[in-house]
Amino acid sequence: MTEHRFLRALRREPVDCTPVWIMRQAGRYLPEYRATRARAGSFVNLCKTPELACEVTLQPIARYRLDAAILFSDILTIPDAMGLGLTVNEGEGPRFARTVNSRADIEALGVPDPETDLRYVMDAVRLIRRELHERVPLIGFAGSPWTLACYMIEGQGSSSFARPKALAWDDAATMHRLLDVVARSVARYLAAQAAAGAQALMLFDTWGGLLPPDLFREFSLRYMTQIAQMLQSDNVARTLPLILFSKGANGHLEALADTGCAALGLDWTIGLAEARARVGSRVALQGNIDPAVLLARPETIRAEVGKTLDSFGPHPGHVFNLGHGITPEIDPAHLGVLIDAVHDLSARRT
Amino acid sequence: MTEHRFLRALRREPVDCTPVWIMRQAGRYLPEYRATRARAGSFVNLCKTPELACEVTLQPIARYRLDAAILFSDILTIPDAMGLGLTVNEGEGPRFARTVNSRADIEALGVPDPETDLRYVMDAVRLIRRELHERVPLIGFAGSPWTLACYMIEGQGSSSFARPKALAWDDAATMHRLLDVVARSVARYLAAQAAAGAQALMLFDTWGGLLPPDLFREFSLRYMTQIAQMLQSDNVARTLPLILFSKGANGHLEALADTGCAALGLDWTIGLAEARARVGSRVALQGNIDPAVLLARPETIRAEVGKTLDSFGPHPGHVFNLGHGITPEIDPAHLGVLIDAVHDLSARRT
Repeated sequence: MTEHRFLRALRREPVDCTPVWIMRQAGRYLPEYRATRARAGSFVNLCKTPELACEVTLQPIARYRLDAAILFSDILTIPDAMGLGLTVNEGEGPRFARTVNSRADIEALGVPDPETDLRYVMDAVRLIRRELHERVPLIGFAGSPWTLACYMIEGQGSSSFARPKALAWDDAATMHRLLDVVARSVARYLAAQAAAGAQALMLFDTWGGLLPPDLFREFSLRYMTQIAQMLQSDNVARTLPLILFSKGANGHLEALADTGCAALGLDWTIGLAEARARVGSRVALQGNIDPAVLLARPETIRAEVGKTLDSFGPHPGHVFNLGHGITPEIDPAHLGVLIDAVHDLSARRT
Repeated sequence: MTEHRFLRALRREPVDCTPVWIMRQAGRYLPEYRATRARAGSFVNLCKTPELACEVTLQPIARYRLDAAILFSDILTIPDAMGLGLTVNEGEGPRFARTVNSRADIEALGVPDPETDLRYVMDAVRLIRRELHERVPLIGFAGSPWTLACYMIEGQGSSSFARPKALAWDDAATMHRLLDVVARSVARYLAAQAAAGAQALMLFDTWGGLLPPDLFREFSLRYMTQIAQMLQSDNVARTLPLILFSKGANGHLEALADTGCAALGLDWTIGLAEARARVGSRVALQGNIDPAVLLARPETIRAEVGKTLDSFGPHPGHVFNLGHGITPEIDPAHLGVLIDAVHDLSARRT
């Protein structure tokens, strides 16, 4: 079969219309998601039960004309598999039973074996891939080493992640040791998702943008580059496009484009025209309409989709997405308006 | 008397050493602040009682070798004076009893008279100025129109401020009407602080950085420019340096430097060398060490202060500060290390 427009766009090949998927498209804004989530009992149980993870992954695919599915899971599965004990309570966010506080804690961490320690994720990938029947490609994903280290040290979310930063400043060698074992774990995990059937891979650097520039380069960018290189030495994963999303790190776009990734995810605080001018055509761009636009009226959503498409311009290599995850209070009909507008308005222009 | 190094640096004149002050320097990390705050009963009462506001403003000046005092107040005094009813509960953040929901709500808003509706602020400025005995200059401040509008519409803090954004997209004319009355109120309020004795003025655009670039220019930047122009037509305020701090808006530095302000406040996610390369010497720069550095060890703090000073380089026009407000969990001794390092290391270089 001809490759799907999502994969073609990531390779910067011509497409019939701009492909679109939505970060957190399987999520709380959908009543069918909330129903499955209630049956699962807990968020973590939803992630850990392949049949339920598959069910919610497919829900937005059934409802909308989306161009990609993304594995329903969480970026914190790796630290959980390392023994930190993840729980996620509604409204509270993720929390680890154990945190990483010392060199000894870090030296005790091993690289999880994806097919045993994270078997439930691999089973979910295989099941989703089967149930998708090639309708759309499946994206696998992981969190960036810096982002995972933030949670492993703080034990939960934080507005500043000051403790991991303090460790990076005070004892860089220890922080590098942590990031190294996490980076090797992430690379192995992504390669295993590729072997299990994922057709594109994405790395979420949710908290890299909180770092000062020198720390970003040393503690976040460096390990994403390392992962991209490790994936290049894997027979399956090397054939998959890698998307890098470093939220709030627009000051580093050129360096991010040089990591070896196929595409950069962009948040909504930079224009696509500017981003494209800075990185040229060496990577595809994914994004980047403000998620808040989904609270606006349908005609506004359509107009803003048009502006976003225009700002990228008539070049190959654009995957439409929000600039961040869709939020729970959105009317699902509004997302339909957005998705249809992307296809409709981009098809007219080609 | 010779003008203080803080004011000289804002005018990009040579100084004996780099001046330093700290955003939220009168705050919860100080035990003496917590004691006064407890006596005040509520945060709003602390702001509204000139003697108590003066007391906490002077506390960090007594403890540290700071180069400026900043009025203890809140950016939400203006909407409160417009009748929205501000309360601030510990841990919860600010909340308004009434929000702005319609064109009619907006048309009912008037520009507060600083000497009657915000008399407590003007009295605090006069009292602080008297009690300072010219030791250091006093900074007055206000929130940017976009930032105030965010709270006036949401009624409280938000991670995305999606409702004000939706209004800006759906009904730009109504949003402009709101921003116009708020901008005129802010300009009048800042001019009144200048008349009451403030020696520099600062505008906090806390939430401008959440906007997509086109909305930033239309709904945040435009009104800050308008305020800078209005202050230029005031006999007293025109003689005071205006500092603009638009957090997370590093993509717009050049435009911010063209508003007519004397200095730009910078968050910690951009290097001072890069910022200076982009805006040249047409404005002074204020900032921008990561507030999290205060959790690191004293020797680390000193080293990072040195790097920050080095990144600005041997030019006039640097006011040292954190890249955001100091956080409550900081050891006050660590702030002393930072302040002393700024003076010590910068004096050695000149």
